[in-house]
Amino acid sequence: MNLIAKSVNLTRVTEWNAGRATVKDDFLAAEEPLEIRIGEEPLSVTMRTPGHDRELAAGFLLTESFVSERAQIASIDAVASGPEGQRGNIIRVQLSSDVPFDPQSIRRNFFAASSCGICGKASIDSVRARALQAPNPHLRLDSSTLLRLPESLRSSQDVFERTGGLHAAALFDPAGQLLCLREDIGRHNAVDKVIGWALLDGRVPLRDAVLLVSGRGGFEIVQKAIVAGLPIVACVSAPSSLAVQLAREMRLTLVGFLRASRFVIYSGPERIVGASEE
Amino acid sequence: MNLIAKSVNLTRVTEWNAGRATVKDDFLAAEEPLEIRIGEEPLSVTMRTPGHDRELAAGFLLTESFVSERAQIASIDAVASGPEGQRGNIIRVQLSSDVPFDPQSIRRNFFAASSCGICGKASIDSVRARALQAPNPHLRLDSSTLLRLPESLRSSQDVFERTGGLHAAALFDPAGQLLCLREDIGRHNAVDKVIGWALLDGRVPLRDAVLLVSGRGGFEIVQKAIVAGLPIVACVSAPSSLAVQLAREMRLTLVGFLRASRFVIYSGPERIVGASEE
Repeated sequence: MNLIAKSVNLTRVTEWNAGRATVKDDFLAAEEPLEIRIGEEPLSVTMRTPGHDRELAAGFLLTESFVSERAQIASIDAVASGPEGQRGNIIRVQLSSDVPFDPQSIRRNFFAASSCGICGKASIDSVRARALQAPNPHLRLDSSTLLRLPESLRSSQDVFERTGGLHAAALFDPAGQLLCLREDIGRHNAVDKVIGWALLDGRVPLRDAVLLVSGRGGFEIVQKAIVAGLPIVACVSAPSSLAVQLAREMRLTLVGFLRASRFVIYSGPERIVGASEE
Repeated sequence: MNLIAKSVNLTRVTEWNAGRATVKDDFLAAEEPLEIRIGEEPLSVTMRTPGHDRELAAGFLLTESFVSERAQIASIDAVASGPEGQRGNIIRVQLSSDVPFDPQSIRRNFFAASSCGICGKASIDSVRARALQAPNPHLRLDSSTLLRLPESLRSSQDVFERTGGLHAAALFDPAGQLLCLREDIGRHNAVDKVIGWALLDGRVPLRDAVLLVSGRGGFEIVQKAIVAGLPIVACVSAPSSLAVQLAREMRLTLVGFLRASRFVIYSGPERIVGASEE
């Protein structure tokens, strides 16, 4: 309840329907900035839906390769800030003393590619260097299980029902059991939240899990999955060319257009049982 | 034709439909990194759909407040790079000699908010300081015109039809005439492309235009519109809480859930004629 209250705002709007205008109250998906600090050093500001902020910060640190395991995070807490001392939009992380930290490394990673003429291949090579381990080649997922995941995602989404405004990401086990679902105004944040949940729960690398995202599957979604060790990523809508290229080079299974009776396998069809070529 | 060829890739996939798996060729929305440089200084790398890259760079420079008018851009060109000297993924901008440029300013803007405890209000104040001018208070848009815009957007989308994978942004005049439509894997890029088109064409600030986006309307979409001087933003899906707050404080008209016979006005209803309160 409390979490839904933070993730949803009620506001007065004018609804115009078939020529009639009506003033009414409507739900909005909440969006606020979150700053992540390493010690006192600001690392990033992202617009996100409040809730599960520690998980968001933990997932961001993992998928951006600042940490690679739970033990490297000594503490991760909301900071009291603002005139009323409210906690909310700043998360401070203390890394273990043995973890090197260079605030310039994001920028450096970004621009390493350009020395050779920036291209998709350089982006893929950068992810390869950061993957915790190769995606589990032995995991298998039954196609009938896969087809049930979108309905399981939708039926568990709290906030979307009210606002129509949130992306969702979820982790499932190979039997189709929901492990963790998170919603956010930003697709990447939703993915960071479920991966951060797994990191804080000691489940990373995610060798035996499936990531489902509610929308499209771009390069950065697949990148985050690979860094976290996930073997299967499914998206409800279309993947991009570079996401498919990255998935194929890293031997990750990438599924798109996952609906009630249909899906498309873009990479790694061997992990989907019952969907072999005719 | 050439542009569509760059924006779409054909690839071999496995389609699974009602228990039958079929190997076929399918279209993917193209995604590749684009680096924007000011002179020799790398400024940003963004994943985008190739095409209209000069417009994307110009729009990014405007909406991130590196420039405020066309005359401040001395040149803007793709750079030859890579072993075969192909042009493609780097755009180099030369600013006029009177334009101050500080590559650290993005990072500074980002973190200015945190000194007072980061919050939505600080984000809004930062946009207010960067708006070219207040949104035109005199513009009026007929509700019947507004209702026709989504169909006009869809019927003009080239790439989406083939891939289902692209966001679209479009500028319309107050009579509902399409001025510019751009598609991209990233919603923000599509908006930067249409604003960049307007900047390069000498049409900024966009005092008499309407921006339509195909998906949701978050804070950053409204921010870009305000910096470019747009008075009306409409989105096909839901806006966020902070987008609505920003629109209200800046007196921009924000419309959501724009469909064939229905829409919701979240801010500035006075600009929509025929949708006044009952």
